[in-house]
Amino acid sequence: MLAMGVSLDARIAIEDLYATYVALLDARDYDPWIELFVEDCVYQVKARENEERGFPLAALAFESKGMLRDRIFGITNTLFHEPYYQRHLVTNFRIRVDERAGYRVDANYLVCRTKAGELTEVYNTGRFRDRVVELDGAFFFAEKRAIYDSELIPNSLIYPI
Amino acid sequence: MLAMGVSLDARIAIEDLYATYVALLDARDYDPWIELFVEDCVYQVKARENEERGFPLAALAFESKGMLRDRIFGITNTLFHEPYYQRHLVTNFRIRVDERAGYRVDANYLVCRTKAGELTEVYNTGRFRDRVVELDGAFFFAEKRAIYDSELIPNSLIYPI
Amino acid sequence: MLAMGVSLDARIAIEDLYATYVALLDARDYDPWIELFVEDCVYQVKARENEERGFPLAALAFESKGMLRDRIFGITNTLFHEPYYQRHLVTNFRIRVDERAGYRVDANYLVCRTKAGELTEVYNTGRFRDRVVELDGAFFFAEKRAIYDSELIPNSLIYPI
Repeated sequence: MLAMGVSLDARIAIEDLYATYVALLDARDYDPWIELFVEDCVYQVKARENEERGFPLAALAFESKGMLRDRIFGITNTLFHEPYYQRHLVTNFRIRVDERAGYRVDANYLVCRTKAGELTEVYNTGRFRDRVVELDGAFFFAEKRAIYDSELIPNSLIYPI
Repeated sequence: MLAMGVSLDARIAIEDLYATYVALLDARDYDPWIELFVEDCVYQVKARENEERGFPLAALAFESKGMLRDRIFGITNTLFHEPYYQRHLVTNFRIRVDERAGYRVDANYLVCRTKAGELTEVYNTGRFRDRVVELDGAFFFAEKRAIYDSELIPNSLIYPI
Repeated sequence: MLAMGVSLDARIAIEDLYATYVALLDARDYDPWIELFVEDCVYQVKARENEERGFPLAALAFESKGMLRDRIFGITNTLFHEPYYQRHLVTNFRIRVDERAGYRVDANYLVCRTKAGELTEVYNTGRFRDRVVELDGAFFFAEKRAIYDSELIPNSLIYPI
């Protein structure tokens, strides 16, 4: 009941999915990272203010794996930017079964950023409000929504959160 | 033995209790948040220096759910303050069975703070030294003690940690 | 499969090992902390740049428990330094069985630092790339390698990460 109807196997598999997500993302290993999403995935990065007031405006909003792939192509090939390292900490998972839609997964996150020759700093904090689905025994992100606390993001948001 | 005598079910239920705690607290959803405590709970926020030297002085010290409720009433109704968002990360749980007193739960925590129109910053770090009890199959905080690392807290401490 | 062949018992024991590691290290309780390592352990703290380019240079590199013990003796007895508190958050574990060598364990970490009379700040972030072994039912670090994101470390690195 407290475990909200989620089997232990699903729980472990979902936490592993997040561990893989942050490992690949922080290593900028984008090709396998994209494969953690289903084809018709939703990916959003949105300010908490907008989320809570019901405003649709998001800093990033992709509605398919193809759009996400385009963004990654932009980052790695064409988009001019000063590179930085990211380091994610994702904690305190709440996992609920959604009969029609897999699993609803919420978790707090912190992303630190390190630019070349600079100290590490807090970059972005917030809450993931995700949906995870199981396909043939493996788990994937159907929706990933990062709802961030600060309206300000240092410089612009280049890499996925 | 390494698992310190704690059943897997209790472990999951206790980690879920913390996940619920931070979700509700960071969402400022105080009414269900208070219901995570037992009636005669202890809630303290105390500097590590004072804790280690055995000094009783605490930044916040409440000795019942009623006192905690008063504080929340103050925050939400009367206490003049500049609002800010909190984001908790609670990690690396150590859970031990205490035959007379439920479970002793320690964990490291980090709270980030975001003020309107400002960047997110580290607000408070420390260690929870808590006691959790099971009542009719549900888990509650009997003691929550946040032992924080810095004698300085940016501005004053408004919201619970 | 997603759990990468790691039994639930091993998983719990390994996460407990890390919880004990950070609890003891942040409490500066070094004597039991050292006992979490095997005798011929490797302990390294190394910049991500050097790691990714295959350079051997590390900020700290110890090749036995004896060397680690010497370092701790230096910190607690002879090394002149301004003390500070550390607070570790270690999250998003990836654990894999390595038939010849126990378990390969990777995890993201954040260390915050608090100096006397100052605010808490982000000190160091990175990734542990560790090897853990089981001896007589207990788990120990055979290799602990902290690969950190910033080439800059505020002042010098005194305490272990």
